[in-house]
Amino acid sequence: MAITLGKNNSGAAEFSSVGRSIPRVEARAKVTGKAEYVHNLRLPGMLYGKVYRSTVAHARLHSIDVAAAQAMPGVHAVYTAADIIKLIPEPYYGPAFHDQPILAIDKVHYVGEPVALVLAADPHVAEAAAQLIVAEYEELPAVFDEVEAMTSKAVVHEVLKPAGTFPDLKHLKDKRDTNIALDFHLRRGDAQKAFAEADYVFEHTFRTQQVLHLPLEPFVTVADPTPNQLVIHTASQSPSFVRIEIARLLGWPENKVRVKVPYLGGGFGAKLYIKLEALVSAAALIAGRPVKIALTMEEQFYTLTKHATTLRIKSGVSKDGKITARECEVWWNGGAYADIGPRITQKSGFTAAGPYDIDHVSIDSYALYTNLPPAGALRGFGIPQLVWAYESHTDLIAKGLNIDPLAIRRKNILREGRPQATGTVMRDAGIAPVLECLAQRMAWEKPFDQGSGTIRRGRGIAIGFKASISPTTSVAIVNVGADGSCMVHCSTVDMGQGSDTAMAQIVAEALGIPVASVTLVHPDTDVTPYDMATLGSRSTYHMGHAVKLAAEDARDKLLALARDVGLSAETTPIPDIFRKKYGMQAGNIVGIGSFIPPYTPPEPGTGLTQDATPFWMIGATGAEVEVDTETGEFKITRLVNLVDVGRPVNPAIVETQISGATIMQLGFTLSERMDFDAGQVTNASLADYKIPGIRDIPAVMENEAVDMVQKSGPFGAKGVGESGTFGVSPAIASAIDDAVGVRLTSLPLTAEAVYRGLRANAGKPLKG
Amino acid sequence: MAITLGKNNSGAAEFSSVGRSIPRVEARAKVTGKAEYVHNLRLPGMLYGKVYRSTVAHARLHSIDVAAAQAMPGVHAVYTAADIIKLIPEPYYGPAFHDQPILAIDKVHYVGEPVALVLAADPHVAEAAAQLIVAEYEELPAVFDEVEAMTSKAVVHEVLKPAGTFPDLKHLKDKRDTNIALDFHLRRGDAQKAFAEADYVFEHTFRTQQVLHLPLEPFVTVADPTPNQLVIHTASQSPSFVRIEIARLLGWPENKVRVKVPYLGGGFGAKLYIKLEALVSAAALIAGRPVKIALTMEEQFYTLTKHATTLRIKSGVSKDGKITARECEVWWNGGAYADIGPRITQKSGFTAAGPYDIDHVSIDSYALYTNLPPAGALRGFGIPQLVWAYESHTDLIAKGLNIDPLAIRRKNILREGRPQATGTVMRDAGIAPVLECLAQRMAWEKPFDQGSGTIRRGRGIAIGFKASISPTTSVAIVNVGADGSCMVHCSTVDMGQGSDTAMAQIVAEALGIPVASVTLVHPDTDVTPYDMATLGSRSTYHMGHAVKLAAEDARDKLLALARDVGLSAETTPIPDIFRKKYGMQAGNIVGIGSFIPPYTPPEPGTGLTQDATPFWMIGATGAEVEVDTETGEFKITRLVNLVDVGRPVNPAIVETQISGATIMQLGFTLSERMDFDAGQVTNASLADYKIPGIRDIPAVMENEAVDMVQKSGPFGAKGVGESGTFGVSPAIASAIDDAVGVRLTSLPLTAEAVYRGLRANAGKPLKG
Repeated sequence: MAITLGKNNSGAAEFSSVGRSIPRVEARAKVTGKAEYVHNLRLPGMLYGKVYRSTVAHARLHSIDVAAAQAMPGVHAVYTAADIIKLIPEPYYGPAFHDQPILAIDKVHYVGEPVALVLAADPHVAEAAAQLIVAEYEELPAVFDEVEAMTSKAVVHEVLKPAGTFPDLKHLKDKRDTNIALDFHLRRGDAQKAFAEADYVFEHTFRTQQVLHLPLEPFVTVADPTPNQLVIHTASQSPSFVRIEIARLLGWPENKVRVKVPYLGGGFGAKLYIKLEALVSAAALIAGRPVKIALTMEEQFYTLTKHATTLRIKSGVSKDGKITARECEVWWNGGAYADIGPRITQKSGFTAAGPYDIDHVSIDSYALYTNLPPAGALRGFGIPQLVWAYESHTDLIAKGLNIDPLAIRRKNILREGRPQATGTVMRDAGIAPVLECLAQRMAWEKPFDQGSGTIRRGRGIAIGFKASISPTTSVAIVNVGADGSCMVHCSTVDMGQGSDTAMAQIVAEALGIPVASVTLVHPDTDVTPYDMATLGSRSTYHMGHAVKLAAEDARDKLLALARDVGLSAETTPIPDIFRKKYGMQAGNIVGIGSFIPPYTPPEPGTGLTQDATPFWMIGATGAEVEVDTETGEFKITRLVNLVDVGRPVNPAIVETQISGATIMQLGFTLSERMDFDAGQVTNASLADYKIPGIRDIPAVMENEAVDMVQKSGPFGAKGVGESGTFGVSPAIASAIDDAVGVRLTSLPLTAEAVYRGLRANAGKPLKG
Repeated sequence: MAITLGKNNSGAAEFSSVGRSIPRVEARAKVTGKAEYVHNLRLPGMLYGKVYRSTVAHARLHSIDVAAAQAMPGVHAVYTAADIIKLIPEPYYGPAFHDQPILAIDKVHYVGEPVALVLAADPHVAEAAAQLIVAEYEELPAVFDEVEAMTSKAVVHEVLKPAGTFPDLKHLKDKRDTNIALDFHLRRGDAQKAFAEADYVFEHTFRTQQVLHLPLEPFVTVADPTPNQLVIHTASQSPSFVRIEIARLLGWPENKVRVKVPYLGGGFGAKLYIKLEALVSAAALIAGRPVKIALTMEEQFYTLTKHATTLRIKSGVSKDGKITARECEVWWNGGAYADIGPRITQKSGFTAAGPYDIDHVSIDSYALYTNLPPAGALRGFGIPQLVWAYESHTDLIAKGLNIDPLAIRRKNILREGRPQATGTVMRDAGIAPVLECLAQRMAWEKPFDQGSGTIRRGRGIAIGFKASISPTTSVAIVNVGADGSCMVHCSTVDMGQGSDTAMAQIVAEALGIPVASVTLVHPDTDVTPYDMATLGSRSTYHMGHAVKLAAEDARDKLLALARDVGLSAETTPIPDIFRKKYGMQAGNIVGIGSFIPPYTPPEPGTGLTQDATPFWMIGATGAEVEVDTETGEFKITRLVNLVDVGRPVNPAIVETQISGATIMQLGFTLSERMDFDAGQVTNASLADYKIPGIRDIPAVMENEAVDMVQKSGPFGAKGVGESGTFGVSPAIASAIDDAVGVRLTSLPLTAEAVYRGLRANAGKPLKG
């Protein structure tokens, strides 16, 4: 029963706890329906809030008539910006820009923007009352397209207000008459000269549609104004940020705001930064009672989305397929509020030229405001859009030069030790190994049956990579009890990705105790120390390091305690060590870990840096499709997804991360698209907006971790949550092209688009 | 707004935060009715438990008929020991002995012992059903008196089962046929020889009655069997102990048990160790649903009490009043279960000879089992009973030798640097200063109006001292946010004594930030590290040290961080230091503090030790009374209470601790007494058991902290929660004697007893 400290396996090839597919620590709670979610939370005296939203895309807000709503029996109060401003004089929030008002002030910027809030003890009363609110608008010209937004006279925000958190936005402070929230430029070598000297120059433009995260748990927040603290229970991926931002809005010290996060029913980047928290907090403080807002599925469409993009990509290529120069221009449709869009624009800009060894690179990446629902981080942080473009482009070059798609990639692939576009030298980046593994798994160099008659078969491959977000900080506490079991305090949010299990395994390994003896505490800013956020596949690496350091600190202190009392920690059960020191089963050993990786910000102007990321994520997909040449309908008969996962902490969970990411990207590739009419989403329901169901999964789907070692990672691990998304879209598009010679350049890939392509190829284009 | 690290005042004479009477941090929550208490907690699906209790004092338990209770509509279940044993094969708990069963097994040991538990969703149903339970008993001879228990053939427990936590109980393992749960013996010099050589020998016997704590919040516990942990919400002074003990009972690791404690509505020692927690936890696990038990006021009388005692004290004295030898025999009536009684017996044994410099000391102290409700720690941990005896005895010696009570104390007082009975040399113990201060405040050496006619006036003084509990451990975490505000994790329970405020002041002082920037988290074993318990006035000293060490650790790390980024921590606002390091408002600095004072256990046999306690508590009381010689009625016209508080952390809170302790002891001195009939409490209600009301407070009551410095204490502080109790009883008894020549030797001091004394003095004793 009694736990004795195991060996420290840090340097070992074999681990005791890490690398094993143990069941998730929260599995029992979830399958028994007992896992805590904010949706279940009811507090005494709690009011429910319902949001009244803008019905126009861009307008001055002349008046809001809330009289009828206020008069409805059971309504506690109706708040507008005028009420918020009494509590918070500058009620604007956002991670990059302080651009988003808690409720619309003077102007509305998109259809669905929160304008007023109704509070009632009965949520149905609040909902009915919200429908009685009438706002008077003076409409303004609106801009919806990201490329038009570059030059449009319709300006979304009159003045830009950077939040001050990101140094590279400082130059935009108080800038007027622009929709450009960030322009990132990278210059390596001399692309223009190289184009002039190239044998061939290829140029294509690709587009991606606006989609959204749609976690099955919609946004939900409860704020409880207790006498000493404002306590916020929220489905958030970034409790530390919420605390800091709400404290800033209120002008309070951080420790007067407490943010508690139980399990999340998915996040995918939607539940980052401030979503409902500012509105719910303000309402609770004004009402002096707990307030809950739980959005509907429909309201998710008005809250946060993924950037639509336009990507122009141009390459100079030698006769034998060597890419000598590449120029990329990317326009990110950020919608009405910047959210973390500028960071996506910059970070994805690092890798917009693809995982290729190209001497001359020019990248321009623009974050743009438009009058659409705001866009932010979504699994992949912009990378799937880029890979879609550069890998489609790669295959078009191959086709143009009649080179095999694998051969052109082998020729240009960015190998270990070579500098990437930013100048950062590639380390522990399994790009070539993942490509070779894919080639083998796809039997690429063996004959492929192309079908015949009306059913044609094709195949495609694609590979992408991503830099991690940097620099970001994680802090953790590991508290070992006198019986050798321990508590871990870390603010990483388990939103379904299994982080609680992975952290428990890392702590167990570093301390030298069984995984079952490790318990994680839910994120709670009064308890769990700072973590930047659970995003960008950073937790296993960053928080993994922090909990490992904390566990090692605790281990060192335990060893010191044993020495102090003249015992050997490696042969004496832990309780006996404590007992010798403290006279009884008493005391705790507390270890602290704080981790921030080295980082060199990109040089202004060139965008170059020697230290772009602490680790690289690599994902590749191979697709085989069957296309019906009579209808354009196609089905994916095989999908192979390979990811460099470093050394997996929990192989079973890693596999579900790869398959989950792949299937999510499959939705964005094949069916998901927000449709708009003058800025109004016209398909804001799960009936009209089609996410993949079990019948949409390819019959053969293989997800495999390419087991490398991330030497700088905790026990060799790296992040794996997003890499599965990278290659899906272009691999399928290339497979379709391979099958029937139709190259699609816009997502989603639909049967209709294929059919139009077939008709055009046949010289009989469809109209309209 | 931004916080800059202040100076470190550790060595200074003037402090910024410590020493100020700031309002309590929880004041607003309490006065607005928003403070959290366990009584308010309702969980979904929760069942209420009602206990069926033994109606006899000592009996074999033949059968329990629960059929009628079980059949009552609305009853979920009825549990007896047979059900508990299926979950917990050895369901015995206790801090010193594993003697107390969760529900009675085979035998009952006192009237009121829990025998069965009814669970129902409606607490009224549970209560009604509990009344339908019928148990069949075979009564056994019972013992109620502590002196009789020494030799009685009625043996409460057949076998003694020490818990193994206290080494000095080990020799009692498996001992049979004894009611002695601990015998402590101290031998210093040769008392018998000194008695033989003394000019005079005085010997008296004193008694104290059984009383109880009666916090206005009765015992209450909720246990919630969540999938991963058993979560216990309980009104406990010892969350760390509850976690360890419940885990031990269940055979679980500590981290599978989570104990959460919000504010307490008083504790006074009652809410220590296991009270309801084991029963509620077992019931919740068996039922698979949350269970709550909230005792009534009446049930407090059956749960934990304060020891009745018999004390025999004998002194050898020279003609001029020098005490040369002292022998004490103390019998502690522990009731049916030992609880912490053996520890009281030993610890108070250290000081049973009083705060006097006596060369020859012999102390025998016995913890005894009887068939009464169990007795445990109550504010003072046995010391008020001892001071009652030795200070009454001192005045009887003075009277016998015709020496002034102040003069005999001055002659014998234990002065700084002299060894106390255990051999421990007195340091930072303001015994003589407190005595001198009392003499001055009472104007002792000035004429005193003794009254005339039927109203006679008298006065008395008394002084006592106490060793702190040792060795005990406290651990704390101080987590500084990027804005310079901080969270403190410590398991000290604020039960009304103001510890949250004191800890905030100590942390603020040690870190160098404002008190308002410090927030304490409620004790929660998943969050707040180990602390032995909130008892024995140990928190200010022990946890005060731990939070100070943690704050200093955090301060050192902040200074290192500043140096690391090339800034001066003393001129740069804290947020700027973090921002320079982490690129944004990010990160935490976490400091750890762990404190255990040096301690040398007493030698077996002699009871001597050089290191009995980390600090001494000293309290003295002066009383002036008016006695009606016709009726024996008396009133206290003035009560002066002086306490050596070290350097007070918060003078206003210290003053309320002195007055609270004094008034509590006033209740035990004048009115409180549990009355028994064959072991059945006959006055188990606040109507019949009289605690002091506002009209019982003396018209003139002066409470004063004698401001010394406890050099080993955090910022010079020491514990102050109990010292006010020490001198109250004997000072009043001596004042009555001084007024009318009646010396009472049993508590409480009643008008009837005085009247009997007056009649006896007049040669006309009352019968009966």
